[in-house]
Amino acid sequence: MNAPNSPYRPLLTDAGRPATFDVDAVDELGETRTVPIAGEHPLTVYVDKQEILTLMTLGAAPEDLTIGYLRNQRLVDSIEDIVAVQVDWETSSVAVKTRNGLVDLDAKTAKRTTTTGCGQGTVFGDLMAEIDSVTLPQNATLRRPALYELLEQVRIHETIYKQAGAVHGCALASNDGEHAQILLFVEDVGRHNAVDAIAGRMWLDRIDGADKVFYTTGRLTSEMVIKAAQMRIPFLVSRSGLTQMGYEIAQKVGMTMIGRATNKRYLVFTGGERFLA
Amino acid sequence: MNAPNSPYRPLLTDAGRPATFDVDAVDELGETRTVPIAGEHPLTVYVDKQEILTLMTLGAAPEDLTIGYLRNQRLVDSIEDIVAVQVDWETSSVAVKTRNGLVDLDAKTAKRTTTTGCGQGTVFGDLMAEIDSVTLPQNATLRRPALYELLEQVRIHETIYKQAGAVHGCALASNDGEHAQILLFVEDVGRHNAVDAIAGRMWLDRIDGADKVFYTTGRLTSEMVIKAAQMRIPFLVSRSGLTQMGYEIAQKVGMTMIGRATNKRYLVFTGGERFLA
Repeated sequence: MNAPNSPYRPLLTDAGRPATFDVDAVDELGETRTVPIAGEHPLTVYVDKQEILTLMTLGAAPEDLTIGYLRNQRLVDSIEDIVAVQVDWETSSVAVKTRNGLVDLDAKTAKRTTTTGCGQGTVFGDLMAEIDSVTLPQNATLRRPALYELLEQVRIHETIYKQAGAVHGCALASNDGEHAQILLFVEDVGRHNAVDAIAGRMWLDRIDGADKVFYTTGRLTSEMVIKAAQMRIPFLVSRSGLTQMGYEIAQKVGMTMIGRATNKRYLVFTGGERFLA
Repeated sequence: MNAPNSPYRPLLTDAGRPATFDVDAVDELGETRTVPIAGEHPLTVYVDKQEILTLMTLGAAPEDLTIGYLRNQRLVDSIEDIVAVQVDWETSSVAVKTRNGLVDLDAKTAKRTTTTGCGQGTVFGDLMAEIDSVTLPQNATLRRPALYELLEQVRIHETIYKQAGAVHGCALASNDGEHAQILLFVEDVGRHNAVDAIAGRMWLDRIDGADKVFYTTGRLTSEMVIKAAQMRIPFLVSRSGLTQMGYEIAQKVGMTMIGRATNKRYLVFTGGERFLA
């Protein structure tokens, strides 16, 4: 039940799993060491009892991931259309109940794209066609001190990455023009999952992307740019490099894309007019 | 036409694209710099005129990638079943002609798994079920000096990674017990593509995996372990970490898995009996 005046929320489980597991390994000195490794679990998504696909996930935020997956694949139009999201690790599955069924599932599954670099496997539908309709806010700005604040917060936050070395992190940060502050930080074995989980939480918590900064540890590929654009986020920051198609799409939608951002170094690739150095 | 006594090869184009493209970016000093970024191109796979899916690729070895994709998805049983693989970048497509059609496409597409960490988007069929039938050679061994040789060769070889910072590399190395030598080195925006391209070249050149070492710059997830096992490769080496499911599958199939391997440091996680320190 939702409290009066609070926004609608579907019925949700809270089934996050531990991010790392300890195993033994033998190092170059012949010593046996206990080493944390990243979790990786299959999670089969059922929507209204129909099997959609199996996601492989760290499992830290399975409800957010499921909602964000359905959002980013455009299978559900709004959070109000989702009645319940219930994860059951015993059966490695998540059961989603919708109000009106999925949007145009057959047409969307007909066109599969296997994306690059840690790409979401199955991107239903033709996301590129949608990109033409995206408008990013022109008046948002990001100042260099706020970028540096964000990078420092990410550095401190990256506990799992340091422990297990097998996950990608994504962060959503506020940006009031002067300061940036991390609002959400999600790690997963694939960055496509991390970005989907953030998209899910943004829907649940009614967070608008238009004044936000999206940070990822991974490469800025076409898929990352498309997903950030779908969330209307004008700033995309990564410590890694980018790809040609990520660059071209960022130019097309007018996104501010900053790569190789670490230790007070960065490269502004596109949308430099929003960045105040 | 194949020369007498040379193994059968399908009719192939030779349509590799440049790995990097130069773009301008502004650095933290306000200087405009020309920076190489990784190529990323859509490549839609048609088999016998039926559209299968779109791969996003660096484009360096599109024919190998296409063949390896069909091999690793178990859509084609042998290289002899492939008549022609013809890439046309004008239409961003590759046309595959087979002798007898694809194996059981409808059943395989019914079960989709979106894999983790740079995972191949669409893994048709239930690969895990197949893993039970894989036997890896028990008598193969890898000596520490050979591992160090391999790591040093990888370090030297990683030109694209250093240039554009947005690709994953995979290498296949010989291993005669004393020495290791890189035979193939493939880079792509996603490591799933790099491993598929190597699988394709192994089919084309009749390279058996049973005495080989597979190296990847990326994480050792379930998908990487499954693909190496399918190629019958007993040694899997990465500079990165691993995941829980990668670990469990490697244990199950008896693979020797070495992670965090760089600069004469490494961790032997599974199958230590084949590794001679």
